Amino acid sequence: MEFEALSSAELSTYLRSVPSLYALLNEPDELDISEVGDGNLNFVYFATNTRTPERSVVVKQAPPFLRLVGKTWPLTRHRMEREVAALRRFGALCPQHVPRVYHADSELFLMVMQRLSSHRILRQGLMDGIVYPRLADHMSTWLAHTLFFGSDLYLAPDVKKQAVSAAINTELCKITEDLVFTYPFEDHPSNVYSAAFPSAEIERLWRSPELRVEVGEMKWSFMNDAETLLHGDLHTGSIMVNQDETYVIDPEFAFYGPMGFDVGALIANLLLAYFSRDWHDTRNPQRPATPADVLPYRDWLLAQVSSIWNVFAERFVALWREHESRRKSHFIGDDHAGLCAEAFRARFMQRLFEQSLGFAGCKMIRRIVGMAKVADITSIDDDALRAAVEVRALRCAERLLLERHRMTSIDDVLAVAREMQATGPVCA
Amino acid sequence: MEFEALSSAELSTYLRSVPSLYALLNEPDELDISEVGDGNLNFVYFATNTRTPERSVVVKQAPPFLRLVGKTWPLTRHRMEREVAALRRFGALCPQHVPRVYHADSELFLMVMQRLSSHRILRQGLMDGIVYPRLADHMSTWLAHTLFFGSDLYLAPDVKKQAVSAAINTELCKITEDLVFTYPFEDHPSNVYSAAFPSAEIERLWRSPELRVEVGEMKWSFMNDAETLLHGDLHTGSIMVNQDETYVIDPEFAFYGPMGFDVGALIANLLLAYFSRDWHDTRNPQRPATPADVLPYRDWLLAQVSSIWNVFAERFVALWREHESRRKSHFIGDDHAGLCAEAFRARFMQRLFEQSLGFAGCKMIRRIVGMAKVADITSIDDDALRAAVEVRALRCAERLLLERHRMTSIDDVLAVAREMQATGPVCA
Repeated sequence: MEFEALSSAELSTYLRSVPSLYALLNEPDELDISEVGDGNLNFVYFATNTRTPERSVVVKQAPPFLRLVGKTWPLTRHRMEREVAALRRFGALCPQHVPRVYHADSELFLMVMQRLSSHRILRQGLMDGIVYPRLADHMSTWLAHTLFFGSDLYLAPDVKKQAVSAAINTELCKITEDLVFTYPFEDHPSNVYSAAFPSAEIERLWRSPELRVEVGEMKWSFMNDAETLLHGDLHTGSIMVNQDETYVIDPEFAFYGPMGFDVGALIANLLLAYFSRDWHDTRNPQRPATPADVLPYRDWLLAQVSSIWNVFAERFVALWREHESRRKSHFIGDDHAGLCAEAFRARFMQRLFEQSLGFAGCKMIRRIVGMAKVADITSIDDDALRAAVEVRALRCAERLLLERHRMTSIDDVLAVAREMQATGPVCA
Repeated sequence: MEFEALSSAELSTYLRSVPSLYALLNEPDELDISEVGDGNLNFVYFATNTRTPERSVVVKQAPPFLRLVGKTWPLTRHRMEREVAALRRFGALCPQHVPRVYHADSELFLMVMQRLSSHRILRQGLMDGIVYPRLADHMSTWLAHTLFFGSDLYLAPDVKKQAVSAAINTELCKITEDLVFTYPFEDHPSNVYSAAFPSAEIERLWRSPELRVEVGEMKWSFMNDAETLLHGDLHTGSIMVNQDETYVIDPEFAFYGPMGFDVGALIANLLLAYFSRDWHDTRNPQRPATPADVLPYRDWLLAQVSSIWNVFAERFVALWREHESRRKSHFIGDDHAGLCAEAFRARFMQRLFEQSLGFAGCKMIRRIVGMAKVADITSIDDDALRAAVEVRALRCAERLLLERHRMTSIDDVLAVAREMQATGPVCA
């Protein structure tokens, strides 16, 4: 039977029929259902008690296709189970940064979750030049906790291996394998280029053996390195913020993969925000005054990249040390000299840093030459400026991929971004 | 109910009750059952028709413990299912190098397989100084086929991910995680050191941050990199040979892991055979004359290391090229310049080479300072010579781990082995 999205009346009746939701929504006589309509994959609704509008939930339903494209791109509805499982797992690890799941229905592939009504999508906030003073702190915690506690550094080997198996997410991983690591390097019909984007840039990208080797390495890592339960799509559109709180949403791409993939996605999206600043600064000259205003907003964005990496790394290592100290054993075995466990941690973090930069590069490239774009850049309606921004971002991404093995500090990344911004090519 | 090994009469009755085996064994009135008794994990028997002794099979049964240690080391009997599945998979890929499985019983955790009556365990043959002219050719094929066809370079992503899940082998992986990557670096009660082995060598091994970091990296790779279906225990005791044929047996450790683990295990065991040559050459002065006698046997062993790597690499790349040419697509996406796919292959093989040397180093170390030894070395009954051999092997292993990222050719490995053999320390 062909899938039909639920009507407002059907959804209202359904929600009122689930006792826990009926109570949570304050025993509604009537629910106001409004479609949010910005999901790439799913149908998303707000359901609100018309009498007491502060009682409101989010409903998410997975249709049997990719919503962005339509019925021509079929997709199993079981992705909803992955998302629910990931929300519950991440929620157990970081309850302060994950919306609560109130109800999940595995027959309708539907879930009901906490509505974050005073929060907005981070990407939108960044475009508007809003300073979020706790963002780096919160995202560092989120990354440290989710990446550490899902890994062999913490879990017993049998639990970890079962978790790998349970988190297999073939279809959504395939989307990433294709749209991030493959199609952008092909003359693929799904690619979209902006009006003034110079084709010479694409040719250079496609034909550079050095770059293609690095992207191939990242694709191999993505497909093989089952290190921890990742969010899998951690861009600035998957984060909701206000001045006090930060929530990570939409983990339907969750699977066991390389830790650097989530770190890299976040760094990539902050760098895309950085390169698009020329435009948004012009558009929003009247930014709200905050203490951070001593910095231009562009520099605040780079400070977030720096802080997220540094504080994440510090917290990740602290969790690791604390765990090993409590267990009185190290991942590498006994540390007779008192130097070896720390030496391994240093190597581990350097490898993770290089891996993160590799994935950051791939994620930036796909947003410039692939199918799915970011609003930070698509909202630039000056074709020449948009192309210049895109070229700078693309070249920055290439340098991250090519130079990551020589980079040892996040300052090296910031230096490349600043250099690209300052000396970046003017669009032909 | 406590496990009891089958009596000869019970096993005989059982085998005769299975119609396919009854036919295969030429309708035996009576079966001669003899226990082989050299299994570390399992009970292994030959079952032979007393009337027509050329009709004979191997029977393998998994008790609910590690046989080498006994009932104090419990082990799930489901390992037999892993072994049967791996034998069938490898047999489909390389029928000429894998014994046939005639029957598998998932209630008794028992299987019946082809008896290789004219073949012997490679390790024994090497100790006796026998030249196997087709060994490198066969093992190169085996490695190339098993490693390539189980990977994302060949399988569709969904098939590969299901295969990863199906091959999870927690308990046997745990044995490797502990006995190869952890206990040898601890003052662990399971470790065994030979009589004259200098404790300063162990101290150096334990206290070197550089070395411990490399071993930690290999442990992380072993636990996380789900690249292909590995044999998982590919030492020279898992290979049966004669002058014409080569069979790989005992894949109970099979799981999805890093490709270099199998390659490294084989290289490690050939290098251990090399370092033990001083002793075996004295013991076997009358080696059979073969054309290879123009080389000292020690050099023939190194030539096998060289040939196995080089021919494996060549065949692996050939399978990969052929597959991509037939599919008209590359792992990395379209190759517009005609240079990128080959550049990625070169990088891939270099990474695999370095990974293989890292695992080779770990596998050599565990045979010197860990629990399970190799007969090549334990058979040396001169304590001082045995210790000298062990120190040379250990130092060679350390150099492989430390220098692998600078090595680009198997000749670099051979040079280190020769250097250790020539200038290696005399035992204190």
